[in-house]
Amino acid sequence: MDGKKILFGAAYYPEYMPYERLDEDMAMMKAAGMNVVRIAESTWSTLEPKEGVFDFSFIDRVCDKAEQEGVSVIIGTPTYAVPAWLVKKEPEIMVLTKAGRAPYGHRQLMDFMHPAFRFHAERVIRRLAEHTAGKKAVIGFQIDNETKYYDNMSEQVQELFVEYLKERFGSTERLNKAFGLAYWSNSIADWEAFPSMRGCVHAGLSGEFDAFRRHLAADYLKWQADIIQEYRREDQFITHNFDFQWKKFGADIAQDGYSYGVQPDMNHYEAAGAVTLAGTDIYHPTQDELTGAEIGFGGDSIRSLKEEPYLVLECQAQAFKYWTPYPGQLRLHAYSHLASGAAGMLYWNWHSIHNGYETYWKGLLSHDLRTNPAYEEACRFGQEWKKLGAETLTIRKQNKIALVVDNRCLTAFRWFPIDKDLSYNDVVRWVYDSLYELNLECDVVDVEALKELGALREKYDMIVTPALYSAEDELIEKLRNFVKDGGVLFSTFKSFVCDRQLSVYPDVQPHGLTECFGISYNQFSEPGTTTVQGQPVRYFMELLHTEGAECLAPYEHKYWGRYAAVTSHSYGKGKAWYMGCYTEKELLKQYLLQAAEAAGIQKAEAEWPVIVRSGINPKGEKVHYLLHYASEEGSFVCPYQRVTDVLTGMEYREGEIIPLRDWDAFVLVETC
Amino acid sequence: MDGKKILFGAAYYPEYMPYERLDEDMAMMKAAGMNVVRIAESTWSTLEPKEGVFDFSFIDRVCDKAEQEGVSVIIGTPTYAVPAWLVKKEPEIMVLTKAGRAPYGHRQLMDFMHPAFRFHAERVIRRLAEHTAGKKAVIGFQIDNETKYYDNMSEQVQELFVEYLKERFGSTERLNKAFGLAYWSNSIADWEAFPSMRGCVHAGLSGEFDAFRRHLAADYLKWQADIIQEYRREDQFITHNFDFQWKKFGADIAQDGYSYGVQPDMNHYEAAGAVTLAGTDIYHPTQDELTGAEIGFGGDSIRSLKEEPYLVLECQAQAFKYWTPYPGQLRLHAYSHLASGAAGMLYWNWHSIHNGYETYWKGLLSHDLRTNPAYEEACRFGQEWKKLGAETLTIRKQNKIALVVDNRCLTAFRWFPIDKDLSYNDVVRWVYDSLYELNLECDVVDVEALKELGALREKYDMIVTPALYSAEDELIEKLRNFVKDGGVLFSTFKSFVCDRQLSVYPDVQPHGLTECFGISYNQFSEPGTTTVQGQPVRYFMELLHTEGAECLAPYEHKYWGRYAAVTSHSYGKGKAWYMGCYTEKELLKQYLLQAAEAAGIQKAEAEWPVIVRSGINPKGEKVHYLLHYASEEGSFVCPYQRVTDVLTGMEYREGEIIPLRDWDAFVLVETC
Amino acid sequence: MDGKKILFGAAYYPEYMPYERLDEDMAMMKAAGMNVVRIAESTWSTLEPKEGVFDFSFIDRVCDKAEQEGVSVIIGTPTYAVPAWLVKKEPEIMVLTKAGRAPYGHRQLMDFMHPAFRFHAERVIRRLAEHTAGKKAVIGFQIDNETKYYDNMSEQVQELFVEYLKERFGSTERLNKAFGLAYWSNSIADWEAFPSMRGCVHAGLSGEFDAFRRHLAADYLKWQADIIQEYRREDQFITHNFDFQWKKFGADIAQDGYSYGVQPDMNHYEAAGAVTLAGTDIYHPTQDELTGAEIGFGGDSIRSLKEEPYLVLECQAQAFKYWTPYPGQLRLHAYSHLASGAAGMLYWNWHSIHNGYETYWKGLLSHDLRTNPAYEEACRFGQEWKKLGAETLTIRKQNKIALVVDNRCLTAFRWFPIDKDLSYNDVVRWVYDSLYELNLECDVVDVEALKELGALREKYDMIVTPALYSAEDELIEKLRNFVKDGGVLFSTFKSFVCDRQLSVYPDVQPHGLTECFGISYNQFSEPGTTTVQGQPVRYFMELLHTEGAECLAPYEHKYWGRYAAVTSHSYGKGKAWYMGCYTEKELLKQYLLQAAEAAGIQKAEAEWPVIVRSGINPKGEKVHYLLHYASEEGSFVCPYQRVTDVLTGMEYREGEIIPLRDWDAFVLVETC
Repeated sequence: MDGKKILFGAAYYPEYMPYERLDEDMAMMKAAGMNVVRIAESTWSTLEPKEGVFDFSFIDRVCDKAEQEGVSVIIGTPTYAVPAWLVKKEPEIMVLTKAGRAPYGHRQLMDFMHPAFRFHAERVIRRLAEHTAGKKAVIGFQIDNETKYYDNMSEQVQELFVEYLKERFGSTERLNKAFGLAYWSNSIADWEAFPSMRGCVHAGLSGEFDAFRRHLAADYLKWQADIIQEYRREDQFITHNFDFQWKKFGADIAQDGYSYGVQPDMNHYEAAGAVTLAGTDIYHPTQDELTGAEIGFGGDSIRSLKEEPYLVLECQAQAFKYWTPYPGQLRLHAYSHLASGAAGMLYWNWHSIHNGYETYWKGLLSHDLRTNPAYEEACRFGQEWKKLGAETLTIRKQNKIALVVDNRCLTAFRWFPIDKDLSYNDVVRWVYDSLYELNLECDVVDVEALKELGALREKYDMIVTPALYSAEDELIEKLRNFVKDGGVLFSTFKSFVCDRQLSVYPDVQPHGLTECFGISYNQFSEPGTTTVQGQPVRYFMELLHTEGAECLAPYEHKYWGRYAAVTSHSYGKGKAWYMGCYTEKELLKQYLLQAAEAAGIQKAEAEWPVIVRSGINPKGEKVHYLLHYASEEGSFVCPYQRVTDVLTGMEYREGEIIPLRDWDAFVLVETC
Repeated sequence: MDGKKILFGAAYYPEYMPYERLDEDMAMMKAAGMNVVRIAESTWSTLEPKEGVFDFSFIDRVCDKAEQEGVSVIIGTPTYAVPAWLVKKEPEIMVLTKAGRAPYGHRQLMDFMHPAFRFHAERVIRRLAEHTAGKKAVIGFQIDNETKYYDNMSEQVQELFVEYLKERFGSTERLNKAFGLAYWSNSIADWEAFPSMRGCVHAGLSGEFDAFRRHLAADYLKWQADIIQEYRREDQFITHNFDFQWKKFGADIAQDGYSYGVQPDMNHYEAAGAVTLAGTDIYHPTQDELTGAEIGFGGDSIRSLKEEPYLVLECQAQAFKYWTPYPGQLRLHAYSHLASGAAGMLYWNWHSIHNGYETYWKGLLSHDLRTNPAYEEACRFGQEWKKLGAETLTIRKQNKIALVVDNRCLTAFRWFPIDKDLSYNDVVRWVYDSLYELNLECDVVDVEALKELGALREKYDMIVTPALYSAEDELIEKLRNFVKDGGVLFSTFKSFVCDRQLSVYPDVQPHGLTECFGISYNQFSEPGTTTVQGQPVRYFMELLHTEGAECLAPYEHKYWGRYAAVTSHSYGKGKAWYMGCYTEKELLKQYLLQAAEAAGIQKAEAEWPVIVRSGINPKGEKVHYLLHYASEEGSFVCPYQRVTDVLTGMEYREGEIIPLRDWDAFVLVETC
Repeated sequence: MDGKKILFGAAYYPEYMPYERLDEDMAMMKAAGMNVVRIAESTWSTLEPKEGVFDFSFIDRVCDKAEQEGVSVIIGTPTYAVPAWLVKKEPEIMVLTKAGRAPYGHRQLMDFMHPAFRFHAERVIRRLAEHTAGKKAVIGFQIDNETKYYDNMSEQVQELFVEYLKERFGSTERLNKAFGLAYWSNSIADWEAFPSMRGCVHAGLSGEFDAFRRHLAADYLKWQADIIQEYRREDQFITHNFDFQWKKFGADIAQDGYSYGVQPDMNHYEAAGAVTLAGTDIYHPTQDELTGAEIGFGGDSIRSLKEEPYLVLECQAQAFKYWTPYPGQLRLHAYSHLASGAAGMLYWNWHSIHNGYETYWKGLLSHDLRTNPAYEEACRFGQEWKKLGAETLTIRKQNKIALVVDNRCLTAFRWFPIDKDLSYNDVVRWVYDSLYELNLECDVVDVEALKELGALREKYDMIVTPALYSAEDELIEKLRNFVKDGGVLFSTFKSFVCDRQLSVYPDVQPHGLTECFGISYNQFSEPGTTTVQGQPVRYFMELLHTEGAECLAPYEHKYWGRYAAVTSHSYGKGKAWYMGCYTEKELLKQYLLQAAEAAGIQKAEAEWPVIVRSGINPKGEKVHYLLHYASEEGSFVCPYQRVTDVLTGMEYREGEIIPLRDWDAFVLVETC
């Protein structure tokens, strides 16, 4: 990445092509303004068709052609799909999960801890890195792909987990106490008696096991990165394709869904240490359901990992029947990625594949490999990007709001769901989407990253915790001090309930923050017919006693009318909001806005479907991406003294009305 | 139990406490009028942390403190959750089910038939009994907990089952014939060919296997009771916590549901022989759905086991979000248990547990371990009970209606469901709840208990059989004679269809009772749009020919209009009703009432939500519990010449209106 | 089959009877006009109670009595349910599927490829055939029953599959290419590396495996037929009971459902070579949902296998609650089978079974084994048939429409569903039922049968392809030529997408037929709010560009309005329709009718619920079955110059109104 151009391209699999098309593909890519391809990930059986026999010819062909055309190449290590010969030789490298030994066929089902897997993976990675690091076109490496721990329950993982617990807790007494193992006779007096995790029903211990396995997955990426380090040039980056928890449309067997929320099986923040450039894939709902929120959430999450521009390694031009973009949507998406701070964007993938599991996970080209409306729209903004370049389009942000997320909370709710229809990520997205729709930009910050910050007030004015169920005293104190120091804390129900071992605090809720919020509660309920401000409460409600707080809204109910639903409270120099129940987004937004105002945070006047996302480009200009997520026309009153839409050259002054077409996008650069 | 005081207390787990609180807990219990704790069940890993190493210190501490405070203790044998060391040593004690060997972690997943389990269980029971039987505070023992057969499919169980069949049927010819095994080539000519029950698709044989395994579970309890017998004092009872089939709210993963109907995996009547005092747990639906019917059904079932006051070993003060009692509901529940004839009631449990599987199966205390609305309400009726005592509050009944239930019918419908949305227990509850709501009190009688009675007329005036699908000729004859002798029989569809091997009788239905009911049928149907008295028929309808019976209501349908839906018939000195289809409760109630009137059974004028349940207390007084299951106010016209509400001292005379607050309770004692 | 009488009878299981009833049963059968029983299939444990010990006594008894009564007997080989002794001896004959080794108990779970199974099966078949072939009453043999491949995944099957692939593709390079195995590293360089099919995620390879296993199942039937050939008399037929994909009502556990569409686990056309007479079972939905379409679809499918009259070996008189026929429905059904070209019909089964899995899969007799409305109705048409005979009632057809079906398309959509609520068979039935309701009679033709035809124009005027997803170039060319030659082709969405390895064609869709249809597309979509002619589009829509075709209807949608939904196009001497989306049947019918008219196909004026199905009887008369699928009365204007209803002797002339009672049936024979 030379920082001059926005990376624009696609994952490219010449080895999947039904016939030779390299020249034609490159020509079509160039015509679309594309300048990068990602290759080789998941091609192990092509790279090493037999054990120890390597064939780099398809890589050479692509790299040579790319170099000739001035196209850059990202080399993926091929480890996330193993060749059949390896499994014939070493059947135990297939992962052993709760469901038994995985059968060969699908990707990502290996036991990446297995020595035999590591031996063979290391060899192919070394050979590939050695072969490609010197190539001029190669600008970086992607290690593995969408790595997770694949519910690895091998004996080795079990043993390592026990070692980890020994180290962490020292004695079985402390272990028993920390997780409350006396319950149902699960306590042990010798480490030898520690049972297989397969049948574990202790949420806390199970959550610890999940966290431990996320460590293993992060370590595995680190191991790959260390190998690549030995070969890569200084100008070559190492990246990884971090993905999000998936949500199915509930329609098809394999071919549906989109990027929804926090990834349970990998901790992005922990793993980000292995890479020099954060990368991600972001998929989204069907054309009729587009809001841009996934691009916002994913971008705000991945950008916050390193606080640097990041690469969208996979996004989607066309797919199964649920993603056939309307005119303008692809271009709008592309600008939305830049608006979140992306340094570039690659489609997954260049061409629709003609067979295999993802036949209908379509590419920019349809199966006919010819031009089509999606490709034509890509050509349009590809050319725009080429012209304007990264100096204008890439932005950095200094958001004053942090939305705090946490894997451990996510997995805790698998054991103790708030409601079967309300997962952790539902709450996270309820809050994130409300901020997004209000045009209140935020960082999405892993709780571990928050802990590593010094004084929170130096960085943020407002911290939002959706269902931060598990929080240790140290973090709670930090948040308390944040409010004391003038910060605004906004927390929802199910925050600050238990420690990191998921033991509920044996004192008044919300633990350690009753004075800060000015409330307490020791009861909660299914809402039944309860309303707040006339709106139905759904899924869950805590019965809040105000103890100093202002009751912003009480519950409306014969018996629960005496309790508060939403409160705010001044504490030290700051203020703390508490939202005790789940409602439609409208109510939540009202209180988030109130809190943001108290935190002194400015926002654009517009609300969704008009989205404004801002930052500073390398030239130091203030850039406002104006995005219109609607199939109808709309308008936006220019709030800036003077801006130029660099896409059209049009100039707008404060108060002027900017007419918005359906699925429209503007890049407004402040000019005074 | 000295018979003077109502037992009131809680399950108590000091070993689960996050910090030492024994003194504080006992003080809070005493303040609430509590006088008993149940301890030690499920604490094996605490009692015997390593093989053969015993530690009774937590038991001693509780017992000592309890004795000092005048609180009684029930000691539970700890066998329903096994320690990890035992499973490490003897992995095969984990039960082998249809799903394979159960993994360690959850409770109640052991193979209680396994010799190694028995060896270790016996040792810890003996040591515990020996250690505690002499303690003054200890008033009784609970053997195991909610015991069932856990779908045990071990080789040993298979072999014992074959032995049992050999003994029962003698020859394979008779076995083949009894169960119709020629079907699909399942007949055998040698016992050696008897196949594993794992793949059995013969409903009859499978039902026999289930019944056999219920025997094993009952025998296992007997085995525990025999051990305790060697140690207990004469004044110490042996009890067991019988539970009911569970119904999920369909909301959460583990933390929801309530006591619904007949327990499929244990026969209460069969197992009751092992204990000297019947015990049970009764859970109920969410605060908005409370009717009291579960307390009625559970109480009428457990009381009928021994026809003695029984102990509610577990009931619930607070729980997951579905049980956050409204003011008055806890107290109403408490009086409802007494109204069914309970001798006492313990909460499960004293305090909410801070970790483990049942974190949100809350106790009387919330996780903050302080006072709260539930605890405060318990204090109120705890003090009331203490003042009034068992002499006033405990009642005995002589109900004239028997509702007949049967495990074999229950499991038969798993193979041949009436409808996917209508289980056996749905029919049982449909009928029971109708009686309950009409204030027609009944005994809930196991079919085996009914068989052991002499002449049924001596005890009952009316017998009700909901879906008594499987009935042998002897029982059918007994029922026929009951009607001949002047009794009233009320049966629903799917009664008297097959014998105990689930072979459908090859003659006219209802088998052996066509003359008694004055009907026959050989067709049944999905109701479609059929109605009866303008009400929709749901799930199932039999096309009844009247043959002497009065057609109380025909079906309303183009083709089925020629058939009767509900009939009654005089037979001998009695009368028999037949309800050929499922309808809303209103229609059923109309006919039940008719039948009860014919049987000369008196009932209170009131209907649900006003519930009246009556009996005679040890002082010989007539006691009428008046319970109001409504969130609105109501009233009750006093039908008794003169009664005193012993809770308030208020006196009421016949015809006076007793005003009822929401969720109100009265204990009316007749005073002339 | 002497061709003189319609076969009318039942499956008969004296060995399941609760008591001896042979004489009584035969008398009742005769009274009903029945003349055939099918016996012995699934009776292995009765025939050979111990290894090598045979007992034919129950067969002899039935055959002797049948001969005496002039009733014919079909002998079924007993192999579809194995005896317990065999599984004790050879546990590995239970089939190994994806779910593991099947447990003993259920039928059809054996590994019919296993040598031990074959050894024992051969012995019992030979002994049975030898014993029965000489009996006068025996008119034919049924080999096995409803044979499928039972998801057989044994090592042997895996090895045979690899052999088959080797032979078919020669090299691993060609294999990799054909199925695109490079995807996710599944390509192999040695045949030894070929992985177990258990985890295969390549739709194409998996589809090939399914097809291969259908071959094995067909070969197995061939193997049985070859054995029977050695014993049977020339006048004895060999048949098999082909069944259809099942659709559950979604109500009960085991006892619900009906014959719905193409059988995925057996290719009827391939297997039909083994038999001399095609046989089938056809079950149908509940009495309120009867349309006759299942009898039409099943009949048109099975008749087309050999283009000869076929035998309905199983149909249903009564069943679980979902099939309690209204007066007239049984008779209507019976005539409907004849109207499709059946040569006879047997009920499954004679009597309701009193135990076992199918207790409520009732027979003509209810469990009481006496007369009942179903039996009485059977008596009526049994006598009618006896009187009229096959010479009058059996018909042959020469349909001019072919509806093309294909197993490979069916299984392909399991991997790439059109929508979770729209299966292949849903599309097939959508089209078939539309034709049926329009009274446009068709053959249902397996794609392999179509390929074997010479010029399609010689036989058909119109070919309809519902979702013919997978089609090789040769077939496509054949269809193209069919249109060129003057035929009418009517195809729906998802036709002509990929080759037989399920590789999508890398050129413009519909592959090879863009000129024929005059359209192309490379995008498709979830319909959202799209409508066509004001009717909602459901599940799926292709965005069609017209390239010469007439747009019969465009999509109505803001963005998709530019695309065609339905098109027609003249090509050569013929014409081609393309239906790009799924709609309610009304729209489809409109275009089918248009196409049929263009093809010069005549139809009766009536539409469902009045059904007319026609043919020529052995006497050369034109016969029109007139069937009325309604519970209300209706009428039909006679379109024939002069016909006689042979059931009543009534004569009708052109233009006369024939009044139709509810569920009425007529057999109109043209008399000039």
